[in-house]
Amino acid sequence: MRIAILGASGLVGREMVDVLAERDFPTTDIKLLASSRSAGEKIEFREREYLVEETTRKSFDDIDLVLASAGKSASKKWLPVAVEAGATCIDNSSAYRMDPEVPLVVPEVNGEDAKTHKGIIANPNCSTIQMVMALEPLHQKATLKRVVVSTYQSVSGKGKDAVGELEQESIFLLNAKPYERQVFPHQIAFNCLPEIDAPGEDGYTVEEWKMILETRKIMNLPDLAITATCVRVPVFFGHSEAVFAEFEDPINVEDARKELDGFEGVRVVDDLANHLYPLATVVAETDSVFVGRIRPDKSVANGLAFWCVADNIRKGAALNTVQIAEWLLKQDLLPQIG
Amino acid sequence: MRIAILGASGLVGREMVDVLAERDFPTTDIKLLASSRSAGEKIEFREREYLVEETTRKSFDDIDLVLASAGKSASKKWLPVAVEAGATCIDNSSAYRMDPEVPLVVPEVNGEDAKTHKGIIANPNCSTIQMVMALEPLHQKATLKRVVVSTYQSVSGKGKDAVGELEQESIFLLNAKPYERQVFPHQIAFNCLPEIDAPGEDGYTVEEWKMILETRKIMNLPDLAITATCVRVPVFFGHSEAVFAEFEDPINVEDARKELDGFEGVRVVDDLANHLYPLATVVAETDSVFVGRIRPDKSVANGLAFWCVADNIRKGAALNTVQIAEWLLKQDLLPQIG
Repeated sequence: MRIAILGASGLVGREMVDVLAERDFPTTDIKLLASSRSAGEKIEFREREYLVEETTRKSFDDIDLVLASAGKSASKKWLPVAVEAGATCIDNSSAYRMDPEVPLVVPEVNGEDAKTHKGIIANPNCSTIQMVMALEPLHQKATLKRVVVSTYQSVSGKGKDAVGELEQESIFLLNAKPYERQVFPHQIAFNCLPEIDAPGEDGYTVEEWKMILETRKIMNLPDLAITATCVRVPVFFGHSEAVFAEFEDPINVEDARKELDGFEGVRVVDDLANHLYPLATVVAETDSVFVGRIRPDKSVANGLAFWCVADNIRKGAALNTVQIAEWLLKQDLLPQIG
Repeated sequence: MRIAILGASGLVGREMVDVLAERDFPTTDIKLLASSRSAGEKIEFREREYLVEETTRKSFDDIDLVLASAGKSASKKWLPVAVEAGATCIDNSSAYRMDPEVPLVVPEVNGEDAKTHKGIIANPNCSTIQMVMALEPLHQKATLKRVVVSTYQSVSGKGKDAVGELEQESIFLLNAKPYERQVFPHQIAFNCLPEIDAPGEDGYTVEEWKMILETRKIMNLPDLAITATCVRVPVFFGHSEAVFAEFEDPINVEDARKELDGFEGVRVVDDLANHLYPLATVVAETDSVFVGRIRPDKSVANGLAFWCVADNIRKGAALNTVQIAEWLLKQDLLPQIG
C-alpha cells in the first residue's frame, strides 16, 4: 500500500509517521506532503530519511491512502483531488466531519460507519474522541441521556507554534521579561483561556460546537442533550476533561469501572485515597484513554461524574487516524500490501 | 476598634492587613498573631512596621475583632479563647463553616445571616464565594434548580509554599532539571490535578463537598441539586470556574447579563468575538467577581452556562472577611472606633 501524509511537517503529521512505524503498518514507503513553506524538511520513517514535498495535483497519482492533517482549507483543496485519483482519505481536519456523506469515526465506537465511505473518512476533534471513548461503554450499559463537559486542553492541540509559545512565554515571565505573543489572544503561561477555535453560534465557540455535534454523530445519538465549555490550559501535551453524564438507567460506580475497563482502548486509573487518577503529564505519548475520579452525581437521577485524560496528538489525532486505516484494512476495504 | 489577625504571616493573613489599610477600616492599630514559627516576622500596616507575635491565651484580652486565617486546627484552638475574651471572630478556615450555630457569610448574598452570630462568623471557601456571587442574582431572577461546576483553581489557594512550588517546578522543568516536590502529590507545572483537599465521601474530595454544602448554606437552599469537580491548575493567582446552572423559570442571556451587572461586587466581561472574557491573570489583585461566556445551555430547560473568575486571595478570602467585618460595623454589631 502506498501512503501519503498530507501536512507531514506538523505536530500531528509527524506523529502519524511515528505511529505508522511503531504499529508496523503494512507499507514499505511513504510520501510526505506539505505546503511549499515546509517542502525540503527531512523526516525519518523506519530509519530512512524522507524529504517533505510540496503538494501538487500530481502528488496523489500513485497513492492508495492519504492521512491528512494540514488544516481545513488544505483538505478542502486536496482531498477531492486524491479521491479523484483513486485514494482513500482519512482527514484529521474539520473540513468534512459534519458532511452527512462522510463517516466520522472512532473505530472502537463506530467503526462500522466507516464502511459507507465514498473516499473520505473524517477523524473527529481531539477532545471529542477521548470523551466518546469513555461515554460509549457507559452508554451501552445504561443509555446516555445528557452530558455536561468542561475541558482542560493542552496547547499542542493548536499546533507546534502554540507549544513553543507556552514554553517561551513561561520562560520570559519567570525571568520578569515582557513577551510578545504570536499565537494566543492572551497570556497562556500560568493562565486559563476559555476560548478554543473561532466564536460560533449562540455564544459557544466552534470547539464547543464540535464536541456537541461530533459526539451526537459518532455515537449515533442525534438528539443527545449535551453542552460543553472548552478551555485552553498551560499544559503542553494531553487533554483532560471533567465529564458529568446522566443516564436513562441506573449505573453504579463499580459497574461503570467494569464497563470502562472492559472497553478496548480505555483504562481506569481511580484510587483517590492514594492520589491516583489520570494526569496529562503521565498519559502523554501513550495510546489509551484514561478515566478516573469516577463517582455518583447525586444532583440528578442516574448521574455519574468522571475525569478523562488522553494524549490529544495520539488518540486524539494521529493514532485514531491510523486506527481507522487499520480498521479498513481488517475489513478488506484498503488494498493489501505487495 | 482593636483588631487581631490570626495567621498574619500567611498569604491570606498578609492580604487581610493590606485590605484593611486600603479600605480605611476604622482601626488605628492591629495585632499580628501567628505560630511560634512565624513570630518575629515584620509586616507593614499603614506605613508602620509590626512584629508578628506568637499566639497565647492572653493575645485576645484587649481585642474586639479577630480575623483568622491560620488553618482549621488553629481556629479550633484559639477562636473559643477569643470569643471567651469578648472578641467577635471572622474565620477563614473550614473549622466552623458547617456548624449550624455559625453563620457562613458572603455579605452581598446573605449578610443578614451574620446577625445571628454567637461570636464566630465563618468565611466560605474561596471557590464557593465567587460562584455564589454569580449565582445569587440569577437565582433572584429565575430560581436556581441545579448547578454543575468544574473549577480551574490557582495554586495560591494552597498557600505560599504552593506558589513557590509552581514557580520552582516550572523553572526546573524548563531547564530540564529534576525537581523534588514538597507540596503537591504530582507535578503541578504544566499539569492539571483533579484533587484539592483530602478525599471525602462518595469519591468526592473535601473541596468538592465544600462547594456543594457551603453553596446550599449560603444561598439558604438546603436541597439545591449541585455537583462539582475541583481541579488545581498551574496558575498562580485567581480561580476560574465553568458553571452550568439550571433554573425553574426561563432566563435569557440578556437578562442574565443585566442581573449580574446590577449585582454589587459582580462585573460582566463578555464579548467572545473580541476575545473578551474574564481571565485569572487579569483579575488578580482586583475585588470583583467577573463573569463572561454567558450563553444558553440548551441541553436542559432554562439552562445557562458561564465562566466566572475572581482573585481567590481577595474576594475568595481576605476581602470577603473584611467585608463581613464592615457589614457588622454598618449594622452597629461591632464597637465603633475611639
